[in-house]
Amino acid sequence: MPQREPPSPLTVNRLSIYLRCLRRLEMDGVDRTSSAGLATRFDLSASQIRKDLAQFGEFGIRGFGYKVEDLRRRLERLLGLDRAHRAVVVGAGNLGTALARSPGFNSPTFQVVALFDNDARKRTRADLEQPIFDSHEIGRRIPELEAEIGVLTVPASAAQENYDALADAGIAAVLNFAPRRLVERPEVPVKTVDILIFMEELAFRLGWRDDNA
Amino acid sequence: MPQREPPSPLTVNRLSIYLRCLRRLEMDGVDRTSSAGLATRFDLSASQIRKDLAQFGEFGIRGFGYKVEDLRRRLERLLGLDRAHRAVVVGAGNLGTALARSPGFNSPTFQVVALFDNDARKRTRADLEQPIFDSHEIGRRIPELEAEIGVLTVPASAAQENYDALADAGIAAVLNFAPRRLVERPEVPVKTVDILIFMEELAFRLGWRDDNA
Repeated sequence: MPQREPPSPLTVNRLSIYLRCLRRLEMDGVDRTSSAGLATRFDLSASQIRKDLAQFGEFGIRGFGYKVEDLRRRLERLLGLDRAHRAVVVGAGNLGTALARSPGFNSPTFQVVALFDNDARKRTRADLEQPIFDSHEIGRRIPELEAEIGVLTVPASAAQENYDALADAGIAAVLNFAPRRLVERPEVPVKTVDILIFMEELAFRLGWRDDNA
Repeated sequence: MPQREPPSPLTVNRLSIYLRCLRRLEMDGVDRTSSAGLATRFDLSASQIRKDLAQFGEFGIRGFGYKVEDLRRRLERLLGLDRAHRAVVVGAGNLGTALARSPGFNSPTFQVVALFDNDARKRTRADLEQPIFDSHEIGRRIPELEAEIGVLTVPASAAQENYDALADAGIAAVLNFAPRRLVERPEVPVKTVDILIFMEELAFRLGWRDDNA
């Protein structure tokens, strides 16, 4: 079977947004919607919604729209959110411990099962429900933790070595908050989230507006 | 003068990436480079670099390339990073205090000058160098703090009202970490960073790989 091209990250990110909108509709007791209805309510593009969903098969019925709960479940399945993913956080600093504590991030879907840090003081200082292990134990602990996703919140200079350690230990994917592009192995995809880039984008827009007002 | 279309966020984000690469070259003592050189060293696209930079005028000299320091300074100026931006964080929970403490985020360029929270316990609990004010004081404090950027780390349900309060108080732009699309005022642009979306993107890629292996 020829390998299909995966959809772009932006398409996948839009599916996440549609999913959030459907969950809000469900909470509001709405049980049926349409691309046009979603678009109006959440300030999205109806044609974009139709195009995005069409990539993944038949959703909805012409003239009837979507059943909110059905579409929500199908998107969850498509995004792999119908099962739990076990995650570890490498770097028990401010951001790492914030993520481990956050009920939004450490959730039934993405369970932060442990942290790692090479600094013994950080390992004892944080008051977390998860254990914090020495980073040297990544190779041994990851298989026994059955962790699938690694979250890097280490300084830029330590990002590559910790990515490599996670990859060697059998981690399947990495979310990288270190402001450093990683040399990536094809079998261990990385998503880098550099928060400063978003601040810089805002700074650019402020300057652009002043210069072009 | 006709208003120019602003470049896309993705273009601006790439400028940030080029800037990081140039800073690394400078640290390594490299004083001259080229689009091809940057592309090879940092796994980027040379034609993309040329195209991105060409939007903003003449950079570099044919056959000579770029002086690293000059290009770094021009990108900093272009991104508005040649001056300090004062920021406030609304929501003194885990993520908010982590950002306020982070030397990467709270930097000479983006100075977190204060936080706000509507929970009195959070206002006293956090051990920060910045003051934490009651959220009801946003309207009064923002002008006296001369803050330009607001960072929202409140729960989704509180995001819109705090955006509105920041906008009313004269904030120029908002970085929103709450997983909620905001009703945006044209004069107060928002960048929403929903960290879970990136986890969901990884979960999707893992499922896609398993299904298409």
